[in-house]
Amino acid sequence: MTLSQRPSTSLGTNGTGNGSTRPLDWLADFPAIPEGWAYLDSAATAQKPRTVIDAIARGYGETYATVHRGVYQRSADMTLAFEASRARVARFLNAAAPEEIVFVRGATEGINLVAQSWGRAQLKPGDRILLSTLEHHSNIVPWQMTGAAIDVVPLTEDHRIDLDAMAAMIRPEHKLVALAHVSNVLGSVLDAKRAAEIAHSVGAKLLLDGCQAVPRLPVDVRDLDCDFYVFSGHKLYGPTGIGVLWARGEILESMPPWQGGGAMIDKVTFEKTTYAPPPARFEAGTPHVVGVIGLHAAIDYVEGIGLDAIHAHETALVREARRALRGINSVRLFGPEESAGIVSFAMEGVHPHDVGTILDEGQVAIRAGHHCAQPLMAALGVEATARASFGVYNGPRDIDALVTGIERVRKIFG
Amino acid sequence: MTLSQRPSTSLGTNGTGNGSTRPLDWLADFPAIPEGWAYLDSAATAQKPRTVIDAIARGYGETYATVHRGVYQRSADMTLAFEASRARVARFLNAAAPEEIVFVRGATEGINLVAQSWGRAQLKPGDRILLSTLEHHSNIVPWQMTGAAIDVVPLTEDHRIDLDAMAAMIRPEHKLVALAHVSNVLGSVLDAKRAAEIAHSVGAKLLLDGCQAVPRLPVDVRDLDCDFYVFSGHKLYGPTGIGVLWARGEILESMPPWQGGGAMIDKVTFEKTTYAPPPARFEAGTPHVVGVIGLHAAIDYVEGIGLDAIHAHETALVREARRALRGINSVRLFGPEESAGIVSFAMEGVHPHDVGTILDEGQVAIRAGHHCAQPLMAALGVEATARASFGVYNGPRDIDALVTGIERVRKIFG
Repeated sequence: MTLSQRPSTSLGTNGTGNGSTRPLDWLADFPAIPEGWAYLDSAATAQKPRTVIDAIARGYGETYATVHRGVYQRSADMTLAFEASRARVARFLNAAAPEEIVFVRGATEGINLVAQSWGRAQLKPGDRILLSTLEHHSNIVPWQMTGAAIDVVPLTEDHRIDLDAMAAMIRPEHKLVALAHVSNVLGSVLDAKRAAEIAHSVGAKLLLDGCQAVPRLPVDVRDLDCDFYVFSGHKLYGPTGIGVLWARGEILESMPPWQGGGAMIDKVTFEKTTYAPPPARFEAGTPHVVGVIGLHAAIDYVEGIGLDAIHAHETALVREARRALRGINSVRLFGPEESAGIVSFAMEGVHPHDVGTILDEGQVAIRAGHHCAQPLMAALGVEATARASFGVYNGPRDIDALVTGIERVRKIFG
Repeated sequence: MTLSQRPSTSLGTNGTGNGSTRPLDWLADFPAIPEGWAYLDSAATAQKPRTVIDAIARGYGETYATVHRGVYQRSADMTLAFEASRARVARFLNAAAPEEIVFVRGATEGINLVAQSWGRAQLKPGDRILLSTLEHHSNIVPWQMTGAAIDVVPLTEDHRIDLDAMAAMIRPEHKLVALAHVSNVLGSVLDAKRAAEIAHSVGAKLLLDGCQAVPRLPVDVRDLDCDFYVFSGHKLYGPTGIGVLWARGEILESMPPWQGGGAMIDKVTFEKTTYAPPPARFEAGTPHVVGVIGLHAAIDYVEGIGLDAIHAHETALVREARRALRGINSVRLFGPEESAGIVSFAMEGVHPHDVGTILDEGQVAIRAGHHCAQPLMAALGVEATARASFGVYNGPRDIDALVTGIERVRKIFG
């Protein structure tokens, strides 16, 4: 099958004229996915399109320089490119201003920054934090480390965050609600606008972990009306070691510094140090310059396709995968029918790691484990799940390969 | 002049047979330095050799996968490569074990990690921290933020950290001494072994900021007998967004977690979370996988040349630069005669930024400013300095270009 790059905004058919509504994919943009390899671990990390790899190589090559400090041309140019990326991220999230974008190592660091800066300044004894059962460890442990009491919103029967339960349990003691916009295990999509309404009804702030959302659906932080939003570049087809914390400008302004160092200060003496305004206040040290450059290219890439198109593509793949897997006797599916690009499942009598290993022999790469969501595993009553997650490069052939592999597992263990 | 790659271990002459002792350089390894560009800002960030750029491109390309979690082959291979880099860093520093190596974003984050984890656990009211006048802001501000009282070791007349003064002022209240191994402004090299002896004489730990040292001279943390060592990859010809914290194993073991998230836990429940042993305890979230891979290539690169050879090369350039600059009337030189690859200077009646701008017009890239060392500027009695710093790609032609540029500044402002 020859794959060609799709026009950028609409999700069409494969153009064979046979009436198929099978969406095309963008595999041809990814030089590092060999033919016949079904990469179904995009929720862990996405493969990189050529444009991103090229932007990174150029970043370390003919344009390389430090930012913010050099008086020579190449450093001035790199600084412009660096700040252009910040503006690009702001547009991507529909933030009010580039100054609301803080570059961090990844979503985990973004959440820790909020927990340790905003949390230490704002949380008083007796204050509580509201999470959900399906959160990733990165959206649990930093909150536990603040010392605040944690309450947990349960899940609906089909494994979405139960917002009715949330509305019933939220209290004025809850100063912060922190939820996954899209579950990394189940693909469940949060009704974020309603979550914001509920949180704000008691004056709590809402933090959304957008790691699995930004690569999979359009995100508009002002429309969602959240207060903090974090994501990682490497899951958005971008570089490793770079991520974004967005927060409302007035919240960022109110937050004390977290890490000290160069670039985040106004004036340093041994007696007294004053700090720069955001975002610089939160970006101590030489930043991950080329990570920021590569992130720009990654955002250009996904917006070139269109997040609506990507969302339609991945939800169609999930539907197809669930239908196919449901037809196999020993497979148990988790999560809601409508999910964004991620399917978790278990096979009766087979450890998910064995599922993963046997699938790998057939060139199918899935993830098996607790997916950094042990409390969710406990709620599902399993130690681990097998997880297939999709990206723009996946197509029905990958689901065929997955199903063939699962049948093979069944034979081996049957 | 044709430049060729040097054999890897000795620093010889340029082989023209004319008895010149001028050292060769390794410019040909750096595809992104155009002919005629004198890049003299390596203390801010080093340009990248082809081998590092290639390793990064391969990291994002045909070998790309997440680490530590995948059950498929490519992820297992990437995990091996990731951990091989940790072992490589351990050998590079002569650490006792790879488990003593923590991957961080850069030296700044490494120092913040020590300040916030070790510092919060160990520092009691009344404890003090000892720094020096020439420290970078990243080795001042994180310590101020601990709330501990700070004392400051003064400089000798030729701008080295005055270890006699340190020996006289250190007291049992000092729990930590944090010093630059090589000054980022002056190139002054610390007698780190003596600093360790003095620190340990009162039971204080010694942290060395090795940012400017690891690219410029051999570092053996066990021989130096320090307790913490930090450096940034991008100054060592490696990627941005990656750095290293080394600490003695038993100290790391004693340190509480700093950032919470995936990969740093043992078991998570909403009631109680237990943590993994070091280094995982300090590496929450998906790491900068490709940064770690690129760092390995960078270490291979500098050790391929040999740090002794690099040190000899750069100190020779510094000597030549100081001699040439001293011949210009209006130039004031800072720092000791023997310095590692870095020269700071001022020109009478000309702001360093103007020096930098005019030099840039002549294709000479230096840095002008406070170099994130405002207390040092105050001690030198200046607002800013002009700084030329060298790397393996620099040669006498760059000093010629610098001097020609300085003469031009003098004419313009004369």
